Parts: sequence; structure tokens; C-alpha cells
Amino acid sequence: MSYCVGISTKYGLAFMSDTRTNAGLDDLSQFKKLFTWGRSDDRLFTLLSAGNLATTQAVVSEIDQDFKSKKSQLHRCKSMFEVAEFVGQKLSQKVKQHSENGINGESTFQANLILGGQIKGSKPSLFLIYPEGNFIEATEDTPFFQIGEIKYGRPILVRAYRRDLSMKDIFKLLIVSFDSTLKANLTVGFPLDFQIYFTDTIKSGVEGRLNANDPYFVDVSNAWSRGLEDLLLRLPGLTLSEEVNKQKE
Amino acid sequence: MSYCVGISTKYGLAFMSDTRTNAGLDDLSQFKKLFTWGRSDDRLFTLLSAGNLATTQAVVSEIDQDFKSKKSQLHRCKSMFEVAEFVGQKLSQKVKQHSENGINGESTFQANLILGGQIKGSKPSLFLIYPEGNFIEATEDTPFFQIGEIKYGRPILVRAYRRDLSMKDIFKLLIVSFDSTLKANLTVGFPLDFQIYFTDTIKSGVEGRLNANDPYFVDVSNAWSRGLEDLLLRLPGLTLSEEVNKQKE
Repeated sequence: MSYCVGISTKYGLAFMSDTRTNAGLDDLSQFKKLFTWGRSDDRLFTLLSAGNLATTQAVVSEIDQDFKSKKSQLHRCKSMFEVAEFVGQKLSQKVKQHSENGINGESTFQANLILGGQIKGSKPSLFLIYPEGNFIEATEDTPFFQIGEIKYGRPILVRAYRRDLSMKDIFKLLIVSFDSTLKANLTVGFPLDFQIYFTDTIKSGVEGRLNANDPYFVDVSNAWSRGLEDLLLRLPGLTLSEEVNKQKE
Repeated sequence: MSYCVGISTKYGLAFMSDTRTNAGLDDLSQFKKLFTWGRSDDRLFTLLSAGNLATTQAVVSEIDQDFKSKKSQLHRCKSMFEVAEFVGQKLSQKVKQHSENGINGESTFQANLILGGQIKGSKPSLFLIYPEGNFIEATEDTPFFQIGEIKYGRPILVRAYRRDLSMKDIFKLLIVSFDSTLKANLTVGFPLDFQIYFTDTIKSGVEGRLNANDPYFVDVSNAWSRGLEDLLLRLPGLTLSEEVNKQKE
């Protein structure tokens, strides 16, 4: 499993991914799942991947090759929609190709991708790409996508996301969502890769890698734990003991 | 899907379950998943169920019948361990029986149970019973069990549980865990049934049913949402904009 989140906000896009890949419980490896391609004058794409590693690596390779070639399709795309179509096509081709070679069904080779970025002249866009190559785009109603082990980290995103949160606060939100997942599931693991993209800059804003002992991550995680315990105690309480006493009468 | 939690604390046991059952997305029904059997002088058992409804109803029926009969095994059990063995046996029998009659494998008919309670003279106990009929008991290291759609509501339990929380706070914790799940997943639904058992009382302490518009539930849910947003904003922040400015220099 993996855990990746892409978020669209008023100020741009934010991405975070873990780096753990596992085949069974005793075969853990570390692989990057956040990739960026850019041409400084007019386009920047970021990709997050979850699912079969051979599939996602093959897709990333294809994008790499295209982006470097003289006849690059990705350089000629006029919108992020066209980029998503290109990536979706590569993904479904790889899933199909791998499953035709094997004895298993397609599901083994499936992967999901989150694609975000901006081409100069249009707005930043964020897409969720399915193994079949089709995709959906983030809107104000559904402003973030998660792939991989999505459930543990979802409640806080659902509750606390607001479109006008600063990137600083969005970054905290991502950390809390990942921390909740890391605390509950062994198949999601450190380090975490992140990238923050500010609208119309056409370049990676802030990017980096957080380790388990990163002082900022530890600070946020501890402050969140303490804060949640505090918050719980301050919630309105039912006077259970009184009801019990009533029942005893 | 369902969502049920049983928690063991210093002061007793607490149980909560949703009441939604679904066969597909368009076939939703409401069924009770929290059951209690008691004999006021010496024993009280509470059962939570998730999984195939035909299986769990059959198990509940068997327990009912036994509990009412003159030769009841459950009345003669000397420990909660024996009660868990009885319930586990009934569960595995039903799973096996239903799958032998059908064309599908066993998994379709599987169910998981949480059993808690106390027999006078011993401590309150809490068990997680698997479809195979075997079971594990809660300890100080693993003081709560979840069954059904467990992931959304797990992070808050992991973070905020403490063995010495008052039952009032444990009740809030359950509400928050269920609210997180209800907000994220359609297969878990209102109303919620709950029961709180205080050690050595050998009777149900507080029990009841919460609807979506229950004023207390709405209060807690709103206070939690506001509190989380607040807490997020108060977390330590990285000065992302400064880093971006640095990069621009």
C-alpha cells in the first residue's frame, strides 16, 4: 500500500506521498512516489502514484522519455486535460500489457495516479487517474484526491479543509492526515515527500522530504495528540453518572 | 458494512454500534447490532455484530434460545472465557452451515463479533470473536476492539484513549470515532446504539439510541469540527512563504 494526497486550494496545489512499497509484510522497500516534470517557461506537472510498482515505474519512464524527446507530446499539450489523457493512456496500456503477459487478472497490475500542475494561460488543475486510463478533475466540491490507504487520513481532510486555508495550514493538514495513517497502518511509511505549488509561478514552490525524526513533523504530531486529548475533554459531556443514579432509584 | 466498538477501561466497558445493513448500495436496511443478555444476580453479556446479517441473527437466536432454556449452558458458564467459547462455536457453526448450503465460499457468510460482560466474582472481559470461532481478549495494551468499517474512526481511538478516562469521556470518544466514520462512509448509518457498563454492577448502566438529530450528538459533532479547525490553525507552522522567497532570490 501507499498513501498519497493531492489538494487544490485558492493559492495553488499541494502534494504529499509516503515512500513505502511492500510485497507481503516482510518485503518492504522504499520508493519515491512523487515525480515532477517542468519547463520553466510554461508548464509544470506533478504525479503521485499508488498501486503496482512495476506499472507506475513504467508509466513514469514513459513520461520521462516523452518529456526528453524532441517530438514530445507533453511539450505540445495545450491543457492539463490533454496531459491527463496522455498519462491515463500510458497507465491503461501498462496495466493491460502486464496482465496479458501474466496468468493473473488485471487487478494485480493496477495503479492509481494523482496528476496536478499548470500550463501557462490556464488555471492549475488536479486529476485522479484510474487504472482504466479515465480520470476525474478536482472541483470546489471535491478539492482533494487521495490514493492508496485512504481511510485513516480522510476524516481530518473532510472536516478541516477550506479552500482559503493558507499553504502553511494546508501543509499542517497534510502532515496530520499522514500522521494518522502512519500511526495506524504498517504499509504506509516514512519518509514523506511533499511539494507545494503556488498558482502562476510555473515552478515547484517548496519541496522536500520529511523523516520520522524530523523536528517539525515531531512537533506537529505531538501538538496534535495533546490538542486532540484536550479537545476531547473539553467537549460537552452527558452526565452519565446522574442517569445511572436515576436508574438506581 | 457496519461499525462497532467495544472498549475496556478502568471503570468498566463501553459499547457502540451503528444500525445500517446494506446489500449493495440501493438496498439499505436498519438492524440492531447490539444485544444484551443478563441475569441480575450474577452475569451480564453484551454482543456487537458485523458481517453477514443472516449469520449474526442466527447466532443471536441461538444465544437467546440457550439463555431462555432450563438447561442453559450460558447460565452455567463460570467465566467470560467460557461464554466466548460458546458464542465462538455458534458463530463458526453458522458460517460453515450457510456456506455448505450455497455455491459461494465461506467468506460471504462470515461475521465478526465483539463480546463483553462480567460474571460475578471475576473481572469484566472483552473479546473479539473471529468467523472461525476463535477469539482474543482485550488487555491493557489492546484495550478496545473495532469490527466492520474500522479505519476512519481508528486514529482518534489510538490517539486519545486512556485507561483512566471517565466513562463520560469514553462516551465522547466513541461519538467522535463514529462521527468520523459516518461523515466518510455511506455503509455506516444512524441511529447509533450504545451501552455503558460499570464494573461490578452486573446490570446495564446507561444505554440508549442516538439519532442523527440528537441534540447532544450534534453538539459534540459541531464542537469537534470547530475544535479540530482551531487546533489545526494553532499547530506550529513552517514559514513556507519565506522559503519560497529564498528560492526566488
